Amino acid sequence: MIESLLEIISDPARVIAAHEIESVYLTDTLGRLKGRADALVKPISTEEVSQILSFAYKESIPVTPRGAGTNLVGSTVPDEGGIVLDLSLMNHILEIDERTMTATVEAGTILEDFQKQVEAMGLFYPPDPGEKRATIGGNISTNAGGMRAVKYGVTRDFCMGLEVVMANGKVLQLGSKNIKDSSGLSLKNLVIGSEGTLAVITKCILKLIPKPEMSLSVVVPFDSLQTGIKNVLHIIHQNANPTAIEFVERKVIQLGEAFLGLKFPYESANAYIILTFDGYEDEVLRNVERVKQVVLAYGALDFIVLEDEQTKSDVWKIRGALVKAVEVVSEQEPVDIVVPIDQTAQFIKYVYEVEQETGMQIVSFGHAGDGNVHLCVVRGNRTEEEWLREKEVNLSKLYAKAYALGGLTSGEHGIGLSKKAYFHRESDPVLLQLMQNVKDAFDEKRILNSKKAYNA
Amino acid sequence: MIESLLEIISDPARVIAAHEIESVYLTDTLGRLKGRADALVKPISTEEVSQILSFAYKESIPVTPRGAGTNLVGSTVPDEGGIVLDLSLMNHILEIDERTMTATVEAGTILEDFQKQVEAMGLFYPPDPGEKRATIGGNISTNAGGMRAVKYGVTRDFCMGLEVVMANGKVLQLGSKNIKDSSGLSLKNLVIGSEGTLAVITKCILKLIPKPEMSLSVVVPFDSLQTGIKNVLHIIHQNANPTAIEFVERKVIQLGEAFLGLKFPYESANAYIILTFDGYEDEVLRNVERVKQVVLAYGALDFIVLEDEQTKSDVWKIRGALVKAVEVVSEQEPVDIVVPIDQTAQFIKYVYEVEQETGMQIVSFGHAGDGNVHLCVVRGNRTEEEWLREKEVNLSKLYAKAYALGGLTSGEHGIGLSKKAYFHRESDPVLLQLMQNVKDAFDEKRILNSKKAYNA
Repeated sequence: MIESLLEIISDPARVIAAHEIESVYLTDTLGRLKGRADALVKPISTEEVSQILSFAYKESIPVTPRGAGTNLVGSTVPDEGGIVLDLSLMNHILEIDERTMTATVEAGTILEDFQKQVEAMGLFYPPDPGEKRATIGGNISTNAGGMRAVKYGVTRDFCMGLEVVMANGKVLQLGSKNIKDSSGLSLKNLVIGSEGTLAVITKCILKLIPKPEMSLSVVVPFDSLQTGIKNVLHIIHQNANPTAIEFVERKVIQLGEAFLGLKFPYESANAYIILTFDGYEDEVLRNVERVKQVVLAYGALDFIVLEDEQTKSDVWKIRGALVKAVEVVSEQEPVDIVVPIDQTAQFIKYVYEVEQETGMQIVSFGHAGDGNVHLCVVRGNRTEEEWLREKEVNLSKLYAKAYALGGLTSGEHGIGLSKKAYFHRESDPVLLQLMQNVKDAFDEKRILNSKKAYNA
Repeated sequence: MIESLLEIISDPARVIAAHEIESVYLTDTLGRLKGRADALVKPISTEEVSQILSFAYKESIPVTPRGAGTNLVGSTVPDEGGIVLDLSLMNHILEIDERTMTATVEAGTILEDFQKQVEAMGLFYPPDPGEKRATIGGNISTNAGGMRAVKYGVTRDFCMGLEVVMANGKVLQLGSKNIKDSSGLSLKNLVIGSEGTLAVITKCILKLIPKPEMSLSVVVPFDSLQTGIKNVLHIIHQNANPTAIEFVERKVIQLGEAFLGLKFPYESANAYIILTFDGYEDEVLRNVERVKQVVLAYGALDFIVLEDEQTKSDVWKIRGALVKAVEVVSEQEPVDIVVPIDQTAQFIKYVYEVEQETGMQIVSFGHAGDGNVHLCVVRGNRTEEEWLREKEVNLSKLYAKAYALGGLTSGEHGIGLSKKAYFHRESDPVLLQLMQNVKDAFDEKRILNSKKAYNA
């Protein structure tokens, strides 16, 4: 296999044999699930990706595509062996087109690098998932969400076009710079969120908007998370167009404070809602005032506008570091269940009940404005055997409850390997079969991530 | 066949045999393409749709789904015979859920009826295609766009979930009330815009937003359409968030004025940009002012804010009636090519060249803010033979130019039968084949609209 790959990629530094592959390429960001691979290849062009896939397809060799490997659900674990296809060298911003307000980037472009470059030009790419070192291709593959989804939507809403390489090596253009499209099936939308199971993304055309004039953040403390969550619906119905609405408990914030050595405002609360507003100054100030009136009327303990840049930066740093802050205290299982926004309070209440009932700590925080609840189910000092058994019981309860409330397994992380059992248990078998039929339409030999997500 | 259908639908008024089918059920809104059908059925429940499809699938009978039949591309023409499945009796608004800001409606619900009901509740459904008597299911099947797409997006952006019946009769829920979703393939997005080729839509979960406080329209006259179109990019780059940006030539407006007996402001211009702004009053006034400054600096003859409700209503009535106004003068072929927004001026220039060169009148107007150009290619007094021949030559030129500029066959009408030849000629055969593979994944026996759009 290595010889054949070297015929395609003549640079031996970009074709790595099994025994020389670093373990980071065999896992995801959590590093718990490990795969094995016969080769790791690092293409630098669509042509190379095409030739590698063409070869793999002919020989029926499994292929696991990856970007920065920051995913949380095992999507980048080469669970079937074969080739790991690392796109991280394809990281060029090819064009920023101010006339059409679009950017064209290679799939391995790092989100943070891209955001910085467009913002320096007075433009803005709104999707803002927590992991800034993820690649754009990875963001598209999980339909990543993030903090600003309340106002702007998710990665899908800013992905106008894709260049993809099919499993058989053929290169296709899906979508375009056109704003509207009613010309045949929207295969672009099918590839978005497909976790590398349908085709390999090589280029992305992204939508940009003008950079907002101003962005203002606010911390609203509450005596209980339930009161805070109930306020979210009031906030949403105010037509105040917040960019972000996050919720977090004080006890989680404390972990974040300790982890980063920073202080969060208003210590004597049990929970917080953190909001951002952006736009023109008058619009932002009006919207902030509108929300202030309603939350103070419904039980907020205070309304702290983060005028000071340092405090604002600290607040968002702490919010951004929560999973890692929990992780240093104990191994934990991340969950990103999504429920309809009017069911968030109900779901959080159930999480508390499960915590009480089983004695297993479950830390909750997340995107209150879109019902996307992040949980960390904490191992504590359980033995491996106890942890696996009790975790399975608790997760089963949580997913069952989420579906009973009209929710779904994942709002933004994807299914991968880690959530597959729960996703399959809760999904209509006819729906799963149809997804597998679609997979076959793209990749008849099933070489691309063929045991992950919706696959059997 | 009729006997079997009567076993499913016991009401004989809802099962109509071939010789009793009114001709309106065998065509689209233009009435030029006519199909034939063995039966017309009018189900009133998902269960009936499921049983009809289950029967048709077993017997391999072609099925043509339809809503109000307002489409412009032959999508509702039963070109293969079999069953016409009319969903227009499934027209109930099942729920308007203010907590989640969603509505659940049956697919046959009329857009206008739905818009009225949500607006009466202080809510707003932004998609606003020209044809208000279309059904929501039809809007979703063509991913309909309309006037407000510049600010709010198209039907896809407001479709959160679908209940569909597969060709084999199985009922599936795609999407949900959840705002985010990274849980398996987005089959909902695949069905949106699929023109009834993949499954029959029976219910739709739609996203609502709070109704804007104010909506203001403006007419900007220019001495030439080219100057007007060039201003569109200036307007877009102002970050003034217009809801609608339409362009239209004076000579087309005159047809509209004559057709409706109404007057359009500023007679002595050759072209107009019509804009709408909505939101809070201060926001709207600020954005109007921002656009006023830029267009007056770039050649606008005036800037007429339509303060008077009557004038505003007349202006939009005229804009809405243009296709029909052209149609009464002469038979015409409607085109809804879309190009990247920076190519609109270039494309319109080419349209003029074709008009000059061939002597066939081509009326242009449309959605300047998103590059979706509507053309009426006018027959004039050509014989049938001349018309068909010359039209084919001209359309071929126009589509080829659109694709050369990075454009697509259809921005919002769909492909159906009328645009199929052009769409196939300009599309990558690998892409078309992949779409057909996906079709097979949904409808292996190919009973649903199987000769339309991307199909062979």
